[in-house]
Amino acid sequence: MKEQEATPDRFAVSGRNRLKRRHDRGRYDHEAVYAVLDAGFMCHVAYVIDGQPYCTPTIHWREGDWLYWHGSSASRMLRHLAKGMPVCLTVSHLDGLVLARSGFNHSANYRSAICFGTAYLIDDPDEKAKALLGIVDRFFPGRSGELRQIHGQETKATSVIGMRIEEASAKVRAAGVGDDEEDYDQPVWAGVIPIETVIGAAQPCPRLLPGMEKGAGLAGYRAGRRLDDTLLEAQQLYEGEEEAIA
Amino acid sequence: MKEQEATPDRFAVSGRNRLKRRHDRGRYDHEAVYAVLDAGFMCHVAYVIDGQPYCTPTIHWREGDWLYWHGSSASRMLRHLAKGMPVCLTVSHLDGLVLARSGFNHSANYRSAICFGTAYLIDDPDEKAKALLGIVDRFFPGRSGELRQIHGQETKATSVIGMRIEEASAKVRAAGVGDDEEDYDQPVWAGVIPIETVIGAAQPCPRLLPGMEKGAGLAGYRAGRRLDDTLLEAQQLYEGEEEAIA
Repeated sequence: MKEQEATPDRFAVSGRNRLKRRHDRGRYDHEAVYAVLDAGFMCHVAYVIDGQPYCTPTIHWREGDWLYWHGSSASRMLRHLAKGMPVCLTVSHLDGLVLARSGFNHSANYRSAICFGTAYLIDDPDEKAKALLGIVDRFFPGRSGELRQIHGQETKATSVIGMRIEEASAKVRAAGVGDDEEDYDQPVWAGVIPIETVIGAAQPCPRLLPGMEKGAGLAGYRAGRRLDDTLLEAQQLYEGEEEAIA
Repeated sequence: MKEQEATPDRFAVSGRNRLKRRHDRGRYDHEAVYAVLDAGFMCHVAYVIDGQPYCTPTIHWREGDWLYWHGSSASRMLRHLAKGMPVCLTVSHLDGLVLARSGFNHSANYRSAICFGTAYLIDDPDEKAKALLGIVDRFFPGRSGELRQIHGQETKATSVIGMRIEEASAKVRAAGVGDDEEDYDQPVWAGVIPIETVIGAAQPCPRLLPGMEKGAGLAGYRAGRRLDDTLLEAQQLYEGEEEAIA
């Protein structure tokens, strides 16, 4: 794919986000990128301070084409955000180990989304208050209404960072072994070992009030279920609620 | 912890890798950092080209205090490696979602390792050949001996990148809910939802030779087992073999 302008459904493609190899695995449309972002709880954020790159794992959430994450007001990154900071935010899922008959054809099944933008500190009080509810409700729909209200001191101690996705790409491999034709008679086991990230049995806090059950917003977090499925569902519920309020 | 020199068992601590917050969760010793690195199949590498940060997911492997990863010789990063390139390589594991009685005390259980160094292209033929076996054997002990030999053209098409870990930190949260004392009577469910990354049932290649069984190096990849346990075990087996050869 060549460089091109954004469309309503697709991010722009530039030298920055264009896949340099395996173009067959790449997508630039919103749907593909959001599917990877929304299926993940953690992301990795790359940024630069004085020429030194940092790669920080954190929790992200998405509202339309904006990504948010948060940090302590004491964190390294935050002192550099005032004027906006170029950032690359990546979400990856490992789906399988692909064992081929040659070392070269070993691979992995995965989904990844790489997003570029300029990160800003969200310091408008209303926008920040909304974001601090979003970080709970996006993962656990409706939960913020069950919690005590956020104290002013807590709002002060938490920084919310936001970035509009300027450019992005998604890359997916979901396939079996691809060996060279002449290698299929090699006497070695080959195949895919699937990998899943799953939810375990909930461990209630020992100081739970008697009879306290999980709220409706936690219904999706059933033991044994894939986390990515639950997170995708939670994002849809969250977007539905947002629309209902608006 | 203040800035300090490296010791035989611990990385140096500088302004670059020193934790800016939650010092109680941080460790700088090799053992803690390697435990996180070795438990992971994928990492995220941050690097800078013309001021723009990139965050690339890839597969890493470790030999002592060196980290390796590989890429196509056509990749974006490789054109900039000749003189060495500052890099930050991070491995993260999500272990649980921590649901508290206030939004502020929501958290995650996780393990992360952040490593700083200078990345170089491994172009010495012997060193590169050894590394291309290492990427297979580190994950699947002894497997490279079962595969056909690597073709010269494949070696040419693959670039191996290596970096000595100059500084690193590990950060771990593995705990229950920590609410403010006055919040424990809040009528809401609180607790930990554990998250695990597990191995699924192997899917043999449809073109497997009749009667072909998985080799001994795949014994650790049993369905239902945690991937991090298998990877830690594989690294120990790999290091044992390395010692036996040396």
